[in-house]
Amino acid sequence: MMNVAVMGYGTIGSGVVEILEQNKDIIARQTGDTVNVKYILDLREFPGTPIEKKIVHDFSVIEKDPEVSMVIETMGGLNPAYPFVKASLQAGKHVATSNKALVAAYGTELLKIAEENQVNFLFEASVGGGIPIIRPLYTSLAGEQIEEITGILNGTTNYILTKMDKAGETFEEALSKAQELGYAERNPEADVEGHDTCRKIAILTALASGHEVNYEHIYTEGITNITDVDFRYADALGTSVKLFGSSRISDQGVHAFVAPVMIGKDHPLYSVNDVYNGILVKGNMLGTSMFYGSGAGKLPTASAVVADIIEALKNPGHHVKMGWDGNRLNISAMDSVSFRYFVRIKGIAAKRLAEAEAAFGKVEVTELDHMDEFAVMTEVMTEEEYHLRAKKLSGIRQRIRAEI
Amino acid sequence: MMNVAVMGYGTIGSGVVEILEQNKDIIARQTGDTVNVKYILDLREFPGTPIEKKIVHDFSVIEKDPEVSMVIETMGGLNPAYPFVKASLQAGKHVATSNKALVAAYGTELLKIAEENQVNFLFEASVGGGIPIIRPLYTSLAGEQIEEITGILNGTTNYILTKMDKAGETFEEALSKAQELGYAERNPEADVEGHDTCRKIAILTALASGHEVNYEHIYTEGITNITDVDFRYADALGTSVKLFGSSRISDQGVHAFVAPVMIGKDHPLYSVNDVYNGILVKGNMLGTSMFYGSGAGKLPTASAVVADIIEALKNPGHHVKMGWDGNRLNISAMDSVSFRYFVRIKGIAAKRLAEAEAAFGKVEVTELDHMDEFAVMTEVMTEEEYHLRAKKLSGIRQRIRAEI
Repeated sequence: MMNVAVMGYGTIGSGVVEILEQNKDIIARQTGDTVNVKYILDLREFPGTPIEKKIVHDFSVIEKDPEVSMVIETMGGLNPAYPFVKASLQAGKHVATSNKALVAAYGTELLKIAEENQVNFLFEASVGGGIPIIRPLYTSLAGEQIEEITGILNGTTNYILTKMDKAGETFEEALSKAQELGYAERNPEADVEGHDTCRKIAILTALASGHEVNYEHIYTEGITNITDVDFRYADALGTSVKLFGSSRISDQGVHAFVAPVMIGKDHPLYSVNDVYNGILVKGNMLGTSMFYGSGAGKLPTASAVVADIIEALKNPGHHVKMGWDGNRLNISAMDSVSFRYFVRIKGIAAKRLAEAEAAFGKVEVTELDHMDEFAVMTEVMTEEEYHLRAKKLSGIRQRIRAEI
Repeated sequence: MMNVAVMGYGTIGSGVVEILEQNKDIIARQTGDTVNVKYILDLREFPGTPIEKKIVHDFSVIEKDPEVSMVIETMGGLNPAYPFVKASLQAGKHVATSNKALVAAYGTELLKIAEENQVNFLFEASVGGGIPIIRPLYTSLAGEQIEEITGILNGTTNYILTKMDKAGETFEEALSKAQELGYAERNPEADVEGHDTCRKIAILTALASGHEVNYEHIYTEGITNITDVDFRYADALGTSVKLFGSSRISDQGVHAFVAPVMIGKDHPLYSVNDVYNGILVKGNMLGTSMFYGSGAGKLPTASAVVADIIEALKNPGHHVKMGWDGNRLNISAMDSVSFRYFVRIKGIAAKRLAEAEAAFGKVEVTELDHMDEFAVMTEVMTEEEYHLRAKKLSGIRQRIRAEI
């Protein structure tokens, strides 16, 4: 029997306790061992509930109990999650966390401490909710040179963009629906400005490259500038717009960015809709793989935490080699990344197309009825080149990167 | 350094040797160890090539060499793969295989021998080519009660069906194109009759349930009866037809089958085309996940074998708990499985719809121009009920199960 402590009895933490109870027979069959939740660290008391007697308010009870061999961190945030997780690893306990902020900020240090103490620091639930992606990267794809990871990694923004695409809603309408349904926070900034996706692609890039990634070096643009008019063009073009977190790794360097990207129907991530996540991985031998599933939600995310508990159960006293080293990856400037560009321009094509072509070169034109504007799709060029060329043209209303 | 022996230097075996060489730095970084191919067992000699000196013709050289700690079986077939693999495990060597026939026929015994000898019998490459699916099932999804696995598991038939769907080809035309391109064997029976898919869904079902599955108990129907006319209706209906291997596991029993199934555009497997494979997994906590990638081909399949080598490298002297026990799963008869049915009927709807409704109850009708027939889509009913009802109606030309 393995004793664990759950820190933070919120949505994910209570989900973990629920799954450990409901699926205990399956877990026992798969691992040959059982899991006992000995402590739950929370500020609240939960009187009259089955967990009442497990509640503790003092982390040192967990830290000092040698019977606790694993700590589950589902508090979120950096403080006190960071000192508690660090102390747990130093006390020789495995840690599983769903906390992407913690992993993105302190992953390198925590992985090192885990290795020094021959325990595991596991974080499957930090990216892609219930989608198995962290573990496949360090097991199934460990022999691959990963050339690209591109993901729809945030369910909130994907829900909003899907509503704008399929139901013709404005950004504001779709956001308030997401808030009503509990998919978006009242302060939605971390999601809609791309910060959540940024931390997730940083973690995936570090895993794929084997080196530390500073998420602050990743160009990050959210979806707040995407409008219902953009989706009317997308509809006419047979495309959609998705918020991508993406990194491309080659001998020439590493590009990484978070931004809305226009894609066509043949893109493997085109049909990832609503709150679902999808992650595309290209390996030098494997070619393209795609992983799809529930990117958020209580039970799917808790299920990923439970998978980490099972990994620790299967490896008693054994440090599983994974993660990245402290040599920080050099992320190339966004200026050097290439895209096609969807550009909306004031005026009518009949009058202004020559100007647009003088600026951008060969373009494909789209016009909608009854609009005082038109749109062009450029050829592939770097961001730097785009900016130089765009300066030559007045009346640009919108620019969306495209991979078509 | 871990010494391995590769048995069978065909497409997959040579791919494994190629990846171990080309990605050796990545493998060393990820595992902290290196792999040396000490022997290659093959009937041929390969004079003047870099592998010339590694070639052996006598398995006992491998079996008796204590330096060889892992054997890679990429010969295919049951004989001599089965006795060689068994002897390797008994000699205390890990085994990785790409051989689905071997795993489906002797998996239970070989898993037991591996456990007794504290080594690993690994077979990621036996299902889904390069798609990580076996390992996620016994790691990431190990805490889930798996309720359904449905996969497009055979690239050859998916290529044929895609050509029939998108290019309007007949089965015969698409098959000969697949043969020209090397996607189909000259004797395509194992693929087009569904036998290959049957072994793969048997392996996945055993892993998901934890119990042995006799693949001969799985109802298996191939794609040889699917015609270009069916796809004309599918086009009119906005659907497609895919060869599914599927199992549904519940307290009421286990259903498993291989058959062509008509699905709509909103099905997660709808956009899995050409030689790609896709596998949908439903867990009781996780909900639906989907795994997509190259289901066949030299390097993707070899990459899955290399992932197994890495797993063994990371677990020296450690048996990883996975697989299934010898309690054979009871697969319910196909008669009790429920579908909707797409049925093509001789005559015109104006004259015969009442008859069709008398037989099947409420149906949706589709008519194509200039045809002496029409099609109906029934409500959901069991196979048994379908057969009873279909007896009441003359002139049924086609019946395809539908999940719409």
